[in-house]
Amino acid sequence: MNVPALISRKRDGGELDRDEWAAIVGGFVAGTVAPEQMSALLMAGVIRGFTTAEAEALTEILLASGEQLDLRGLRGPVVDKHSTGGVADTTTLVVAPILAAAGVQVAKLSGPGLGHTGGTIDKLAAIPGLRTHLTIEQMLRQVGEVGIAVCAASADLAPADKRLYALRDVTGTVPSPALIASSVMSKKLAAGAPNIVLDVKAGSGGVVGDRDEARGLAELCVRLGAGHGRRVRCLVTDMRQPLGVAVGNALEVRAAIEVLAGRGDRRLQQVAVALAQAGLDLVAEAAEPVRAEEVLASGAALEAFRKWIHGQGGPDADPEDLAKRLPAAPVRRAVTASAPGTVAGVDPRAIGELAVTLGAGRRHPSDVIDPAVGIILDVRIGDPVGAGDRLATIHAATETAAADAAGQLVGAIELTDGPPPQPPALVVDEVGPDPA
Amino acid sequence: MNVPALISRKRDGGELDRDEWAAIVGGFVAGTVAPEQMSALLMAGVIRGFTTAEAEALTEILLASGEQLDLRGLRGPVVDKHSTGGVADTTTLVVAPILAAAGVQVAKLSGPGLGHTGGTIDKLAAIPGLRTHLTIEQMLRQVGEVGIAVCAASADLAPADKRLYALRDVTGTVPSPALIASSVMSKKLAAGAPNIVLDVKAGSGGVVGDRDEARGLAELCVRLGAGHGRRVRCLVTDMRQPLGVAVGNALEVRAAIEVLAGRGDRRLQQVAVALAQAGLDLVAEAAEPVRAEEVLASGAALEAFRKWIHGQGGPDADPEDLAKRLPAAPVRRAVTASAPGTVAGVDPRAIGELAVTLGAGRRHPSDVIDPAVGIILDVRIGDPVGAGDRLATIHAATETAAADAAGQLVGAIELTDGPPPQPPALVVDEVGPDPA
Repeated sequence: MNVPALISRKRDGGELDRDEWAAIVGGFVAGTVAPEQMSALLMAGVIRGFTTAEAEALTEILLASGEQLDLRGLRGPVVDKHSTGGVADTTTLVVAPILAAAGVQVAKLSGPGLGHTGGTIDKLAAIPGLRTHLTIEQMLRQVGEVGIAVCAASADLAPADKRLYALRDVTGTVPSPALIASSVMSKKLAAGAPNIVLDVKAGSGGVVGDRDEARGLAELCVRLGAGHGRRVRCLVTDMRQPLGVAVGNALEVRAAIEVLAGRGDRRLQQVAVALAQAGLDLVAEAAEPVRAEEVLASGAALEAFRKWIHGQGGPDADPEDLAKRLPAAPVRRAVTASAPGTVAGVDPRAIGELAVTLGAGRRHPSDVIDPAVGIILDVRIGDPVGAGDRLATIHAATETAAADAAGQLVGAIELTDGPPPQPPALVVDEVGPDPA
Repeated sequence: MNVPALISRKRDGGELDRDEWAAIVGGFVAGTVAPEQMSALLMAGVIRGFTTAEAEALTEILLASGEQLDLRGLRGPVVDKHSTGGVADTTTLVVAPILAAAGVQVAKLSGPGLGHTGGTIDKLAAIPGLRTHLTIEQMLRQVGEVGIAVCAASADLAPADKRLYALRDVTGTVPSPALIASSVMSKKLAAGAPNIVLDVKAGSGGVVGDRDEARGLAELCVRLGAGHGRRVRCLVTDMRQPLGVAVGNALEVRAAIEVLAGRGDRRLQQVAVALAQAGLDLVAEAAEPVRAEEVLASGAALEAFRKWIHGQGGPDADPEDLAKRLPAAPVRRAVTASAPGTVAGVDPRAIGELAVTLGAGRRHPSDVIDPAVGIILDVRIGDPVGAGDRLATIHAATETAAADAAGQLVGAIELTDGPPPQPPALVVDEVGPDPA
């Protein structure tokens, strides 16, 4: 294999065939293709673009690099749910109970959060006693018993994707629809669910910047799933500002419980309901469709949450009581507006990075998370504020950390004295399960 | 330094400033910037382009990474000459003697050939006894005594460029005007000559494919030289087919001697004379310009070649006698046309690669060269050939190598039964010494 010649072809806008991609990715994993060759090839593809055939080839190669779960032992409908990563975005903790309450099983493997977006596993780990690492047998048994299992992905699922993603993360080669789609879908295909709900985040805090790009990514994911016999429903949702009000692991669990209890944040609720509805629609066979909003309003989802948490090793407690027993940060510090105005922007990436700095996330895989710390936001794009009004509250481990974060938070919230900007729509687009 | 952020900026078409480039290149050499980050950054630049300011910054950074020779001890005019690398292209062995015969000193440091293009040092090494490695003191003394020294570049000149080039070579990131110009010019600036003649090869066998790209590269080199007080004259010459008739080290030395003796290949002679004239014009101060063609015709250049070779440790012999004493390959095999036609193409890259396969060049820096082997071409674009006419002669170490090469050579020479194609012009463009 002439690796420089393959790189040069991609650099000049050409295409690599399936065998060539298999040889390159296999060589990279085996160490015969150097990381500097792989990253140059990926950068060429990020800029020049990949064809659909290349995305399909990459997906299959990443999928074939590891184990594939067999969920066929589960009776009844099974849905998996995945997000490309948001800020103040704890939809999984709401969506899974809604689905389970409606009789749809949720089997989800999740990676740890890395960078400015949170990870579901880290949020669950904020709950005392909860086990995030289950064997396949434990996972299947739990799904059968309580309808939901969300646990840490094994290193054996699409291991080549892990190697590739670690390379992409440090070489500026993350933002490519084909690379994102093949990474996401290879893991979702390996995890075995026949029905998949995807949430593609668009906007400055998401993986793609604009609607068109997000729609392209969504269509590609649906197509890649269909190619392996999976039904994929993909929603494009707004990440120009944080979705909910809470950023940080225990804070987000509490925010999810409040939504499940019917008095939580309206934006988080709206997106969670839309995602749950997508899951219900994927498996609907009855003439009368089930409404996710009604399942939530009935209190059945809150009860499903309670069973799930207890089933996975957490306290057998009323969720509202559980919320009070979650780790709490010793220091709270309000951030206020120095002058009146209207909120023109809340930078999700800056907010997410700030939460990481506080200890809510990882810069390196070996970093240890503080489940208690984070940020509660009080304002959104379009909100009017007066001088001295609270913009947010920092939850920190120390006074110093709180003071540092407060100084930086002011820069993440943009005020204007012009007319109030139009708040962005929450659910921007929907694609699937039939590919275009 | 946030390396992924700098890579991402370049990926999205942005520019890095001088300090950022210095930090990145310095980090790469020091090992704190990973090779996979450097190659991704370079690939982004190759595709998106570099600004002139970036090329200037890179040149200075590469130059400052090592020693810089001081040639001011030499009295009289001094010229350096460099080619971006051709096939059947031994112009240095003709240009240097013409310049020396006209009283212009030539001090040239040269790297070994790598890939499909030959290197002057390897050609000189085919001459029995000749020393290719001189100390700076030896080099300066020899230039003072015989007017010419061409020797192997020390690893201490622009060492960062060597590291970068090794990375570019395996990652498809060679073809960028800014990267080529900063690599070439950092080494030329470090070598200390106030006047520099450059030969940029355009066409399938050269570093750039088309005339416009070649002119851009030439203009950039002239500008980078002027920025350091050097006068640079840059010729763009054709490399859509091999320049001369001989490929291989001893064969090329013989071809150069034939040109110096006034009966060699006309194309090689024409380009060598144009390059020598460029050198003479760069240092001309007299009212009456010296004509390179007349210096060559007078026999003075042949005599200057004799003195140079003897001064650098080679035999004290009449060059025509030296030519007979060069290493000769034990096997010669003619390649003939199987049908009549007109030569439509002679692929310089394929011919160069074939010579490497025969042993005339290196695939890896540690490969040992066989000075005797190579190819003598009998045809050029536009030539009519009859069935059975000789196209080329293979000079090989073994019958097997000759037979293999003969089979491949047929594929490198394209015959047509259509009208004869227009042979390409030899000197395509000229730029400098004043930047545009």
